[in-house]
Amino acid sequence: MSIFLPDPVVKRLPMYYRYLSTMEQQNKSYVSSAELSLATGLTASQVRQDVYSFGGEGRQGIGYPVSELKKHIEKLLGIHQTRTMIIIGSGNLGHALMHYSEFSEKKFEIAGVFDVNPQKIGSPIGTLTIQDLENLESFVGSHPVDIAILTLPAVHAQAVAQRLYHCGVHGFWNFAPVDLQLPKNAAIVNVHLDESLELLSYHLMHPEI
Amino acid sequence: MSIFLPDPVVKRLPMYYRYLSTMEQQNKSYVSSAELSLATGLTASQVRQDVYSFGGEGRQGIGYPVSELKKHIEKLLGIHQTRTMIIIGSGNLGHALMHYSEFSEKKFEIAGVFDVNPQKIGSPIGTLTIQDLENLESFVGSHPVDIAILTLPAVHAQAVAQRLYHCGVHGFWNFAPVDLQLPKNAAIVNVHLDESLELLSYHLMHPEI
Repeated sequence: MSIFLPDPVVKRLPMYYRYLSTMEQQNKSYVSSAELSLATGLTASQVRQDVYSFGGEGRQGIGYPVSELKKHIEKLLGIHQTRTMIIIGSGNLGHALMHYSEFSEKKFEIAGVFDVNPQKIGSPIGTLTIQDLENLESFVGSHPVDIAILTLPAVHAQAVAQRLYHCGVHGFWNFAPVDLQLPKNAAIVNVHLDESLELLSYHLMHPEI
Repeated sequence: MSIFLPDPVVKRLPMYYRYLSTMEQQNKSYVSSAELSLATGLTASQVRQDVYSFGGEGRQGIGYPVSELKKHIEKLLGIHQTRTMIIIGSGNLGHALMHYSEFSEKKFEIAGVFDVNPQKIGSPIGTLTIQDLENLESFVGSHPVDIAILTLPAVHAQAVAQRLYHCGVHGFWNFAPVDLQLPKNAAIVNVHLDESLELLSYHLMHPEI
């Protein structure tokens, strides 16, 4: 599946997936672009354009088949298969993500948690044991890892990301407040919590009228 | 300060703020648009356009005064003053956010944590005690709250957000996987973790060449 999708459409895929999942749970068979427009806040013509661009098919006068379209997006997102992840940094955020309930449903599996703090190494975390970051290369060598979740301090993030990249991990879910510099074929999605909160503060100061 | 800023510029403000903070810590007095371009990955002309649009001033041949520009952005973002927040939902994510170290530095203060689970109500969380969600209105009535952090299950998020809005809370940092429907003057920033992970999965499947 090698469709080229513009970035804004890619960013909306998870939202479409979420609405379609809910509709499937409600045993809805078909959904019109008008209904999707109402749910998503996009215009109906934008919805039609989006769905067309990512190769979804509707039926004139009936709408889009919910489960089929959902499955199509699932494959586009690559979430029809299980993704193996490791967490680097076992602080509060690392713990929270370890236990974050959405993962298992959505087939994202955490296979290892790493830290540098001797007082944490060896401690249990969920069903796993926190490992020494020294073991990173040997672990990744014997367990294929798709995604590294970076919840370590900003100053160490770049160096650890490079180690990960060099042992074959190409997916980075980065919670450290730093922009990683990695080769182009690395996939990086940032969750910069402090910046998102600053943005909220801005919108509080400048409300829409 | 009522400059109209286009959304993409607004979204870049926290990033500029982060780089300028680091430069200030390094005792850097001036920064050129070329240096900011290198740091941020934007073009130098984009940087100049951004800074001009939000009213920052540079000096020909010297660059932008780091501390002054940082302070200017701080005010634009409204983070020169303390923001009071409450957390709704004391699960793993609520706990992690309670302890998230960036908050205090950045003057975001958590004043209350609420839950509906009788086994959690009354338990300590950081320096606070988890309160019954029933007390929400009376708490907000006596403690001005700027921002509610929603880490409760998706099915309850809309109803609680409406309760919060009606007692005067207009800022929503929403971690529940749902798009809140609130009046236009509510400020909402979503952190949809599962969707961000799905996006990462997409980029893993479709790497840049």
